[in-house]
Amino acid sequence: MVNRPPAEIGMPLAEVDTPALIIDLDAFEGNLRALPAKIADKPVKLRPHSKTHKSPIIALKQVALGAVGVCCQKVSEAEALVAGGVRDILVANEVVGSTKLNKLAALARHASIAVCVDDAGNIADLEEAAVLFDTRIKVLIEIDVGAGRCGVAPGEPALVLAQTLSRSKHLQFDGLQAYQGSAQHIRSYDDRRQAIERAVAHASRTKALIESHGIACARITGAGTGSFEFEAASSVYTELQCGSYVFMDADYNRNLDAGGQAQPQFDQSLFIWTTVMSRPTPDRAVVDAGLKALSIDSGLPVITDYPEVSYARASDEHGKLEIRNPSQAGFDVGDKIRLTPGHCDPTVNLYDWYVGVRGQRVECLWPVAARGALT
Amino acid sequence: MVNRPPAEIGMPLAEVDTPALIIDLDAFEGNLRALPAKIADKPVKLRPHSKTHKSPIIALKQVALGAVGVCCQKVSEAEALVAGGVRDILVANEVVGSTKLNKLAALARHASIAVCVDDAGNIADLEEAAVLFDTRIKVLIEIDVGAGRCGVAPGEPALVLAQTLSRSKHLQFDGLQAYQGSAQHIRSYDDRRQAIERAVAHASRTKALIESHGIACARITGAGTGSFEFEAASSVYTELQCGSYVFMDADYNRNLDAGGQAQPQFDQSLFIWTTVMSRPTPDRAVVDAGLKALSIDSGLPVITDYPEVSYARASDEHGKLEIRNPSQAGFDVGDKIRLTPGHCDPTVNLYDWYVGVRGQRVECLWPVAARGALT
Repeated sequence: MVNRPPAEIGMPLAEVDTPALIIDLDAFEGNLRALPAKIADKPVKLRPHSKTHKSPIIALKQVALGAVGVCCQKVSEAEALVAGGVRDILVANEVVGSTKLNKLAALARHASIAVCVDDAGNIADLEEAAVLFDTRIKVLIEIDVGAGRCGVAPGEPALVLAQTLSRSKHLQFDGLQAYQGSAQHIRSYDDRRQAIERAVAHASRTKALIESHGIACARITGAGTGSFEFEAASSVYTELQCGSYVFMDADYNRNLDAGGQAQPQFDQSLFIWTTVMSRPTPDRAVVDAGLKALSIDSGLPVITDYPEVSYARASDEHGKLEIRNPSQAGFDVGDKIRLTPGHCDPTVNLYDWYVGVRGQRVECLWPVAARGALT
Repeated sequence: MVNRPPAEIGMPLAEVDTPALIIDLDAFEGNLRALPAKIADKPVKLRPHSKTHKSPIIALKQVALGAVGVCCQKVSEAEALVAGGVRDILVANEVVGSTKLNKLAALARHASIAVCVDDAGNIADLEEAAVLFDTRIKVLIEIDVGAGRCGVAPGEPALVLAQTLSRSKHLQFDGLQAYQGSAQHIRSYDDRRQAIERAVAHASRTKALIESHGIACARITGAGTGSFEFEAASSVYTELQCGSYVFMDADYNRNLDAGGQAQPQFDQSLFIWTTVMSRPTPDRAVVDAGLKALSIDSGLPVITDYPEVSYARASDEHGKLEIRNPSQAGFDVGDKIRLTPGHCDPTVNLYDWYVGVRGQRVECLWPVAARGALT
């Protein structure tokens, strides 16, 4: 059930089998350094989201560059991260049911664990698991700051949960989860900024309300690759949860900056390496990366090095390319090309291995350790 | 990198952790028997497509019920099938590049292997690999019968490749791959029938042309769950490649029959088991199955047992449900529900384990052995 890697260390990229998940290591390392530099003068810490990369190897690189820890979304992801040496994890999500809560509490004996809640019954269940394992778990109350997904409404409902948590012996109320997920891909810079201004107002008001009742609300955590500069400048958020910045994708690359330009702040470092497997007509090529090799939920992939060729349709194991120029080179049967995935996170989750490439040579093979960690 | 199963044998379904990939074994076994029964009086063999299930356990059940072998799409899938005891495999796809061709040729020493071609250069490469491993490989010429993906045009271009193959010592020309993939989900019965009538005409004409040049063209293979009755009745197709019939999905369930009704010929046997993890407002519930737990390429999943509730949006780890009836039961935090996936094949590929359930009890845990077998 573990697939063999599609490459060997030292192999030229041209020989890597396809489809393969490629990291351009120079671009990737540049991104790892760029985000801490961008926020160095701001009163915020970085806690990158590992749901993007699912790799303790990458998480530890982020920590080495100053991150205070990482986020993940699932208990099974947290298990993979702790097994890989990560020691400070926020499960930036609700964890429901005794099976998962027991695993989370057990893990809290081996690492600093925080989790989000938005329900009083869930707090009672979490407390029960923490008692069972005689451990302490940090707890953030998730408030809905505009995404319309999980989270209680800002203000009074969050105060009620904070008061419940403040009476707990095993749970430590630690602040607010205030992630505005639906703002991340708003194309217009001003609209994105305004969405985050509203989130900041919700978080600020809720923090003030809780603190006015004598309960410290130290941590306000949220933000993503599309919006982090606004949360960083807010003086309200204390932690940033950016994930995609390490890799980027075609969807994030379409966000516009203050000047109205699609000039991403980070470099594309993640690619799908794919082979032209059929060239039935002059205007059509078929590659071996389809729905099982890339996620199309946020749009189709882009042909990285040939913007004039388009990826027109994905079926399970095939990608159909439209070639408008009849003398187009580089698309004969057997030729290999790079695709920029539409959405990095669910694409990464389809692979067992990262193939790290510097220049044109394979330098590392990293397992996608939490691939398929669904529970 | 191998995730633990979300269940144990004997466990009640209610205790299975989520998200989980559930097979309703009674429905599944009914489907396994139903397709052979439907074609028993037709002059066609069944060679089910294993790209749907990626499981040699299921492939061997299909063979035990009369299938002549199975199809798959990737060499790495074929490796997993052969390792699991399957002995007759058609890679119903082009295989390009020496890395893959060598693996295919090596495998042909351990099982009966057939593969598709649509390119003269690829035939030369395949021959070279077969020589290297001193093995014989059956070869089908793929013709484009209307899907507009891989395959040479019907008629003369196929004849040219057949003549090339007829001169080979290690490659055995065996017939035509004539799969009309784009017809499978045409909703109207008559439109679907007409699309297959055109495919049948292309296949029949090409076979006649090749045989008129003294080259036997024994096998015409194709068809899927949406169209098999037409190919089965054609007297031209000799093999059916249906895959999804074992599980079904929301997309196939929308196809209409001759009477204009969406009454599927097979029962839904595949489900995603998911937990309500947040209930922030009366009209919204959030479940723990998002883009990494189900594929939305062919539409969103359906809430199996509550058709009045809809799955409105998938994000990476969340599914947002719209609840229109304010007194709706069954959607409290911690409640578990079944989802019917929009598209079974890429959804299965997201899981490491099938949880087989009979009645309300876990009866088996089957690895999705070729999960992530991309190459």
